[in-house]
Amino acid sequence: MQALENILTMIPSPQRSQPVSLSTLLAPQLEAVNTCLFEKMKSAVHLIPEVAGYLVSLGGKRLRPLLTVATAELCGYQGDRHIQLAACVEFIHTATLLHDDVVDESFLRRGMPSANAKWSNPASVLVGDFLFSRAFELMVADGSFPILKILSKASSTIIEGEIMQLSASHNLHLDEKAYLDIIEAKTACLFSAATRVGAVVANASETQQDHLAHFGHFLGLAFQLMDDVLDYTADQEKLGKQVGDDFREGKVTFPVIIAYKEGTDNDFWEEAILKGSRDEKMLTQATDILKRTGALMKTQQLAQHFIDKAIAQLESFPNSHLKTALQDLAYFSVYREN
Amino acid sequence: MQALENILTMIPSPQRSQPVSLSTLLAPQLEAVNTCLFEKMKSAVHLIPEVAGYLVSLGGKRLRPLLTVATAELCGYQGDRHIQLAACVEFIHTATLLHDDVVDESFLRRGMPSANAKWSNPASVLVGDFLFSRAFELMVADGSFPILKILSKASSTIIEGEIMQLSASHNLHLDEKAYLDIIEAKTACLFSAATRVGAVVANASETQQDHLAHFGHFLGLAFQLMDDVLDYTADQEKLGKQVGDDFREGKVTFPVIIAYKEGTDNDFWEEAILKGSRDEKMLTQATDILKRTGALMKTQQLAQHFIDKAIAQLESFPNSHLKTALQDLAYFSVYREN
Repeated sequence: MQALENILTMIPSPQRSQPVSLSTLLAPQLEAVNTCLFEKMKSAVHLIPEVAGYLVSLGGKRLRPLLTVATAELCGYQGDRHIQLAACVEFIHTATLLHDDVVDESFLRRGMPSANAKWSNPASVLVGDFLFSRAFELMVADGSFPILKILSKASSTIIEGEIMQLSASHNLHLDEKAYLDIIEAKTACLFSAATRVGAVVANASETQQDHLAHFGHFLGLAFQLMDDVLDYTADQEKLGKQVGDDFREGKVTFPVIIAYKEGTDNDFWEEAILKGSRDEKMLTQATDILKRTGALMKTQQLAQHFIDKAIAQLESFPNSHLKTALQDLAYFSVYREN
Repeated sequence: MQALENILTMIPSPQRSQPVSLSTLLAPQLEAVNTCLFEKMKSAVHLIPEVAGYLVSLGGKRLRPLLTVATAELCGYQGDRHIQLAACVEFIHTATLLHDDVVDESFLRRGMPSANAKWSNPASVLVGDFLFSRAFELMVADGSFPILKILSKASSTIIEGEIMQLSASHNLHLDEKAYLDIIEAKTACLFSAATRVGAVVANASETQQDHLAHFGHFLGLAFQLMDDVLDYTADQEKLGKQVGDDFREGKVTFPVIIAYKEGTDNDFWEEAILKGSRDEKMLTQATDILKRTGALMKTQQLAQHFIDKAIAQLESFPNSHLKTALQDLAYFSVYREN
């Protein structure tokens, strides 16, 4: 982890101020993805569109489908297969959210009751399963083996990542490398699959496919690290979920790993994470330690480092509004508020 | 439901005594499927082979993969793709078992602690997800779009069936037709997919594919109906799970629908199923009513009727040990003890 140590000493600072919004630029396509999501979740079994529709209506950033659409069009794609493939990516993501909330016993999702809180764990498990298998049906209907390979492999990997995280929960001895392996699997992998699918549907060269897959990969890592930071620092209203959930669930995220390595507050972390007693007073204390030790700042710096690597992947693509919007999306992801 | 009414007056009786065991006839192939199952559940994430291996080791009848292998070879298939495809079918089945036990809060599976009892609900949810996505990876690696279509459609349908069942739980007004729709989706559909895949991998004619798919369909319906019967009548040791679980969970299965329609014991059923109080004394009482009203016998008769239809589907295939073994498997499924 020598390289990582070096990275952690860097201090980034924002240098731009005029983001071009990818979701504005691709508004009609995003609307088409939304229509596709609601169309394809239809079932004679009413509970399915009810639960799935609720979760999809909660919105969220639609970041993954946006990446599929954007990368396809960046590679000059002019058809409409990318809309349905983007919907597949979002279905896989939504399925994992439904199951995550059951696994983590979370009762809020984007500031609203989670599906398991509103219906039940069984409904969340089964509707998640349905979205997952419906995603596969849609991919099969699309008819490309390379894309099926990317997304079926990504699905297995995401779940491996979730299980790695479950196995590592409350483990204060997790190191940075092991943690990055977990978020690579559970988060970055679907970002990377989303961007590679965009390139593949556009028949881009293998080099372009790899560049865009790496763009997604680094962006995904940065997003997850910033999620870890925001869980301690965000404005509750803007975050759209409870601040402090990671801590309440005793999750050992990147900032906690960094702070624990400092060795100055080990009694606190061992009591908080290992012994399972975590009240609101301790959350405040944890946030103070994470700030004092620079753990949050270092996590944000590492996210910035990954974003720099992500943006570098776009260099070889000709300049366009789309390329600028993708760069800005990456650039500002480190300074986002939710 | 006039046709059904007529069926329910028929009384079948066993006429054969010398079953040829399909699992003996296909022992080497079944061994190859088992090897494939353990090989393909491997993951660097130890919890996955631990949980999945436990469930697969509990055995069970391996009925669905056996059907894929048997139907492929009945159609003259001589390659080995059917082994891996049979493993896919079993992975899909195992994934649904893992999730079923979470949904039903069951703590026993084949006479042993269920995975959710031994590990946890999160482990069962996530390892189920993994097996499901691994099944898709294997199908994609197999490389046949017709087979991907069959199995991805079947997966969605199974889950729709599970959700239909969840939505209909404790509903005493469910009629026979609606109940058969549920078990068609949640059980018969995978039987039918398993047998159709066997025919497709063997490049059988469309007529043969349809015959074998219908064979699986009717066999699946009969199996589920006999499961419903055995849940009240089986020998606990032989059943390999707790007798009476359906009743304890307040499940309205086919025998209960028939008995409730009789109208002689509605106070009992309404108290038991609707009001949620079900002790062991009531289980005995329920079993007595199901016997007295002929509900169990009528369910078994309907299962027999479906088996007759299943066996008729095999008529056009040339006689062979395999055909006889498939006929016997179907014939004796109505008289099985687990």
